[in-house]
Amino acid sequence: MVTPNELLAEIDGIGRDRTRGGYSRHVFDHAELELREWFTAQASARGLTVLPDGNGNLWAWWSDPGDDAVVTGSHLDSVPGGGRFDGPLGVVSALSAVDRLRAEGFRPSRPLAVVVFAEEEGGRFGVPCLGSRLASGSTAPETALGLRDESGTTFAEAMSAAGMDPRLAGPDPANLGRVGRFVELHVEQGRGLIDRGSAVGVASTILAHGRWRFRFTGQGNHAGATPMGDRADPMLPAAGLVPEARSAALRFDDARATVGRLRPNPGGTNVIAESVDVWLDARAHRDADTRALVDELSGRAEELAAQEGCSVRVSEESYADGVSFDSGVRDELTALLGAPALPTGAGHDAGVLSARTPAGMLFVRNPTGISHAPQEHAEQDDCTAGAEALTEVLRRWSR
Amino acid sequence: MVTPNELLAEIDGIGRDRTRGGYSRHVFDHAELELREWFTAQASARGLTVLPDGNGNLWAWWSDPGDDAVVTGSHLDSVPGGGRFDGPLGVVSALSAVDRLRAEGFRPSRPLAVVVFAEEEGGRFGVPCLGSRLASGSTAPETALGLRDESGTTFAEAMSAAGMDPRLAGPDPANLGRVGRFVELHVEQGRGLIDRGSAVGVASTILAHGRWRFRFTGQGNHAGATPMGDRADPMLPAAGLVPEARSAALRFDDARATVGRLRPNPGGTNVIAESVDVWLDARAHRDADTRALVDELSGRAEELAAQEGCSVRVSEESYADGVSFDSGVRDELTALLGAPALPTGAGHDAGVLSARTPAGMLFVRNPTGISHAPQEHAEQDDCTAGAEALTEVLRRWSR
Repeated sequence: MVTPNELLAEIDGIGRDRTRGGYSRHVFDHAELELREWFTAQASARGLTVLPDGNGNLWAWWSDPGDDAVVTGSHLDSVPGGGRFDGPLGVVSALSAVDRLRAEGFRPSRPLAVVVFAEEEGGRFGVPCLGSRLASGSTAPETALGLRDESGTTFAEAMSAAGMDPRLAGPDPANLGRVGRFVELHVEQGRGLIDRGSAVGVASTILAHGRWRFRFTGQGNHAGATPMGDRADPMLPAAGLVPEARSAALRFDDARATVGRLRPNPGGTNVIAESVDVWLDARAHRDADTRALVDELSGRAEELAAQEGCSVRVSEESYADGVSFDSGVRDELTALLGAPALPTGAGHDAGVLSARTPAGMLFVRNPTGISHAPQEHAEQDDCTAGAEALTEVLRRWSR
Repeated sequence: MVTPNELLAEIDGIGRDRTRGGYSRHVFDHAELELREWFTAQASARGLTVLPDGNGNLWAWWSDPGDDAVVTGSHLDSVPGGGRFDGPLGVVSALSAVDRLRAEGFRPSRPLAVVVFAEEEGGRFGVPCLGSRLASGSTAPETALGLRDESGTTFAEAMSAAGMDPRLAGPDPANLGRVGRFVELHVEQGRGLIDRGSAVGVASTILAHGRWRFRFTGQGNHAGATPMGDRADPMLPAAGLVPEARSAALRFDDARATVGRLRPNPGGTNVIAESVDVWLDARAHRDADTRALVDELSGRAEELAAQEGCSVRVSEESYADGVSFDSGVRDELTALLGAPALPTGAGHDAGVLSARTPAGMLFVRNPTGISHAPQEHAEQDDCTAGAEALTEVLRRWSR
């Protein structure tokens, strides 16, 4: 029986980001492919049968695949410069839970599977939960396959390079239709469990969330030779959007608005930018508030651009409605584990699956409250408690 | 006798930037090395002897190298996504002028050379005019060799990869000591010659200018799970600096302040940045004003950072005092060519050389007034007029 921490230690060296710190493991890049191989070997060593689907997700089955299955899992990809736990903790806890069940001679009476979803962070192609969204039909394959990474490679090309057939991408009722119940374990990404004094918690809701790109376009020019009065510098409205996002978020209930990615083109020190791309991550408790927040910022962006003689084009890159996890699952998990329920502002594959399947989530306490950064952490004992809780849920659901 | 435009057409395909538009030709990259080979072949075909120095500059001598030489030239590197003329026009006009002098049977009575300076734009290693600054001793070799590009490669490593010996970098009295007079032809980078109705002009002054990096540091975190009140988001003070730079520039005489390059780390859409680098390009007529402008912005940056619970560190990447070109050269050129004198906000190798050698510059009209962008332009007739003017100057100086 291997603990989550022992399994995490095995992959510690994969995908470290020397420039940004932390880990950069993006779907189908060298590091993420290495993690897939590692997972496949680990699952096979436990007697699980690993079946890749057409969307880049890996399904590892205990006995034969079948209907009304109990499924758990998470993802192995990271944000750029991300932490050690976001994603992998759910995968290694699932493997550890399988160990625990096997050690006690447990024989599931329903099919049981561990799944690894592709591109949960959207760190390479911009759309988070891309693997589960494709499988569930909430992102169309023709949209997904045409997404491009920063170097211009399409998702279809990346799939092919990784040995997959992009023609197989799309709705996958064969696999998703088998999922009777889904549970995802994840490191907590805020201070909810610190405040509640509990090692493990149960998800109640996910904020409505999405990503929008604001492209401000002006006139590229020489930074020294162009008088201040002759400029149409898109960096001005782009920068102006940042404090606007902050103040807009404060006007809506439990809302967040973040600019963490901003790219001037061409991006030379002595060059007035021709255009600036600003990515807005916006979230709120209510779907309507998320939409209203983005509408408000789009209007302000137009005004800011016009003041500088620039233009702006806003495009939605992804959107996910808010999620209230199945109340039956939530109440069963809190009672079974004696764990508190808590909301999260972070999106998850469990949220995507919850639209069609009873689904729940377990959170493991994060003593820093920090996530998507190298300081993300979970204590060894808390990780073990998480794996025990997950074992308990799988045992209960599949007995 | 080949015209500047015919020569430019030969290198049109080298270093096109499909992402940004225009050209990206950075010192010692594939495109710039190809341009060096092309230049060497062109110069050799004209009977010039090409002697690389230890700083990445190429000196092409008409007859033997010697003292009190007449030297002309410019650079072949570009800003990212730059125009067709900035740099190469001065090089091809020099080659065209050599053709014209040879065609008329001219024999220079003083040594004459065409020089190509390395990394004039600072587009790869951040310090503009690096080749001439190294040769003249205004940048120390130990500083230059340790400069890193975006991928972490040092200038020393890039030199070695290009077949040069970085131990030879540094002050070069052997070559610079031979320069009796220097003239650089360059596309105009503003509207000065449009306004004056002249195809060719003569440089009078260069603004004092430099580059500073502001590194704002906060706490990287999750864009969805972190409440707005719990953030130390360095994007806020980084964005705040942009309009501050604009308004500061308006308070100083003939000043410019530009943020054309800004990089959040790690730069994920769903990630609150850990740090943000903002590069400031600042220029003013007086050295003291340039310094005062940057001091003022550094103070504002401290305040903006503190408001967000962030910190900021400001570092100077390069600085060049303002230049008044040798008045004797300037008056001689304006009289000889019947051309107007005009100031520029752009830095040039001729400005670096002017500290030790009588130097001047010729500008060729730019009908867009735009530079450091794909729209940069010069009409064919104006380029020919520029080459004729340069021929006239070289004939006069070296007869």
